[in-house]
Amino acid sequence: MEKTLSVQGVKLGVTQAHIRKPNHTDLTLITLPEKSTVAGVFTQNRFCAAPVQVAKKHLKETQGKVRALLINTGIANAGTGEEGLKNALKTCEAAAQLLHLKTNEVLPFSTGVILEHLPVERLIAALPPLLNNLDENHWENAARAIMTTDTVHKVASETVEINGIAISITGIAKGAGMIHPNMATMLGFVAMDASITPSLLQQTVKEAADQSFNAITVDGDTSTNDSFLMMASAQKPLHFETGKEEGWEDLKSALFRVSLKLAQAIIKDAEGATKFITIQIEKGKNNAECQKIARAIAHSPLVKTAFFASDPNLGRILAAIGYAGVDDLKVEDLEVYLDEVLVAEKGGRALSYKEENGKRVMAQKEITVRVCLNRGEESFRLYTCDLSHDYVSINADYRS
Amino acid sequence: MEKTLSVQGVKLGVTQAHIRKPNHTDLTLITLPEKSTVAGVFTQNRFCAAPVQVAKKHLKETQGKVRALLINTGIANAGTGEEGLKNALKTCEAAAQLLHLKTNEVLPFSTGVILEHLPVERLIAALPPLLNNLDENHWENAARAIMTTDTVHKVASETVEINGIAISITGIAKGAGMIHPNMATMLGFVAMDASITPSLLQQTVKEAADQSFNAITVDGDTSTNDSFLMMASAQKPLHFETGKEEGWEDLKSALFRVSLKLAQAIIKDAEGATKFITIQIEKGKNNAECQKIARAIAHSPLVKTAFFASDPNLGRILAAIGYAGVDDLKVEDLEVYLDEVLVAEKGGRALSYKEENGKRVMAQKEITVRVCLNRGEESFRLYTCDLSHDYVSINADYRS
Repeated sequence: MEKTLSVQGVKLGVTQAHIRKPNHTDLTLITLPEKSTVAGVFTQNRFCAAPVQVAKKHLKETQGKVRALLINTGIANAGTGEEGLKNALKTCEAAAQLLHLKTNEVLPFSTGVILEHLPVERLIAALPPLLNNLDENHWENAARAIMTTDTVHKVASETVEINGIAISITGIAKGAGMIHPNMATMLGFVAMDASITPSLLQQTVKEAADQSFNAITVDGDTSTNDSFLMMASAQKPLHFETGKEEGWEDLKSALFRVSLKLAQAIIKDAEGATKFITIQIEKGKNNAECQKIARAIAHSPLVKTAFFASDPNLGRILAAIGYAGVDDLKVEDLEVYLDEVLVAEKGGRALSYKEENGKRVMAQKEITVRVCLNRGEESFRLYTCDLSHDYVSINADYRS
Repeated sequence: MEKTLSVQGVKLGVTQAHIRKPNHTDLTLITLPEKSTVAGVFTQNRFCAAPVQVAKKHLKETQGKVRALLINTGIANAGTGEEGLKNALKTCEAAAQLLHLKTNEVLPFSTGVILEHLPVERLIAALPPLLNNLDENHWENAARAIMTTDTVHKVASETVEINGIAISITGIAKGAGMIHPNMATMLGFVAMDASITPSLLQQTVKEAADQSFNAITVDGDTSTNDSFLMMASAQKPLHFETGKEEGWEDLKSALFRVSLKLAQAIIKDAEGATKFITIQIEKGKNNAECQKIARAIAHSPLVKTAFFASDPNLGRILAAIGYAGVDDLKVEDLEVYLDEVLVAEKGGRALSYKEENGKRVMAQKEITVRVCLNRGEESFRLYTCDLSHDYVSINADYRS
């Protein structure tokens, strides 16, 4: 396990607010120093949760000059109408007052059950102990406090050295079900201590999301609360504005790697998952068709149960490719591989294919399905998992 | 159980051809008298199975003047390339020779495992006993012989009287998994003994499919072999050509009812299903948006497991509506009902909603989810089922 680094100026606190269950650390606060910048991407679900609506508004009003993030689990404050918006705002107001900030310098995040109202009084009553808990070394605590059905906490860290200055990057994420992010995952937060202008940070968080949280799927269900935030605490004497500065590409690559690690950690902890599947579509005409085919394979319950059974049921993969909605696809031209094993070509099973080779790959814990479309230069990689008995058990029991 | 009617002139035979398993009735022949007309709709999966390609070609060449249908289970002859096409054709040739027909007067249908080659010799060797078994009263036998993972056979019959002449309609279907028909279901065959021109029959089978087999989904997986055929044996002195004839509307309604009964029987027998769910979308701007929302709800594994658990987890339904891809949807305007219980309105839980009422409906074996979009006049009804432990078991074990 790699070391979790603190990010200069970024403090985290956790406490028990009894949001939905007693004796449960369910409230997290992240504070940022002056001059910090924040950017984010959010769910495109039309039933966008109240905290997401408020967070987007506050980010816009402050042009990214945000100073605190307040995150609760237990209740998602989604599908809660006008009252939900008021409640999200009340929690920001209360936190802002204690922190001597403006209300819109605080962003609210919620995750948990949909359609329930937030117990605002209990949440506000928990703020003073939360402030007392603030510390630069509490990343791991925060990663645990934002978990719901997750079984492991998700943290990733990297250091990038630019001109002799070490920049720390640390991120946390949560999510295990209702995972088909459409802009971002359930909740992801990545901070670094360089200084980055809001517009460059916004562009970076978008690109990072597309390669990480937007490239994972557990069950095809896009959450109402997906949010992925990137924070720059501006504590190290390195400033990035145009993206042409020396060292920017190194920093950006490190940010992408941390984001991808967090996204992959979600898949590895996916509800009931026993396998980590990479779906790689290559040589497509365009990115859209690569995504369609990757998502058709990844969302097929038949493909997912075959992975669970370690059964090289290639027909189900071919059927999914066939119904993905790429109308002019010529199935005779494509090749399908399980890891390095060529399994299908010329519209049928490859002559060289031996069932024992397919079985060997399917028995692995990590499997790559590679589809070579042979009709262009675009590619797309999607990460997913299998569908097991435990997925049904977890989701048949979640509310009870 | 209603009586299964014979359809004058339509004979059915079944036998054991040992396609994939021994001691298993796996081959069915349906023969039609001269002057019969046949029309069909087929899968839109790009990995369209060999028999589907041949059946479409033969239907076109004969302009619907088909005289025999040969149906095997065990192996789907899909994803089998050039050899698959040759094999499908060989079986038609052999049957045509024995029946004194042209090759293209025979349509082939296959269902079962994908990517395996048909044992053509065994299939052809089984044709003579199959012909000996032909009988107008073998509909039930045929319904059983076309089953794969189905647990019950699916037959529906109706009589329509027009001008004192009784027309018999009988249909059979099979399917329990990989059910998300896109034109038709796995396999469905409906016959009647009136006379109908090929073009009117084609229009009718398309309309019937849209309201029945195209309106069901088990797992969102569109099969490579979906085929739905309608046959008119022209034995009763009633001829329909323009669709303006007296009695046509009655006959058409009866054909639609029989098709819908067969489609619903597939859902009731869906792999692992414990509940029959009707998703009814009302007052949409257009049919496409109603379909998008219905399918998002029906395909959500989270919604499906909540149905399995009898848990009124409304948030999952709202989330699915929200991510269905209707970009200008205003969630404040819509209402969601479980049967007659209003559960959500104005973007959140309905004030009148009591959890006990939601629980009562969710505990039922048959449930209607009604979503009123309040923005137009279009509607769409989709039939689906829950996602249970048994679905995972059945599909993790299917090939072994």
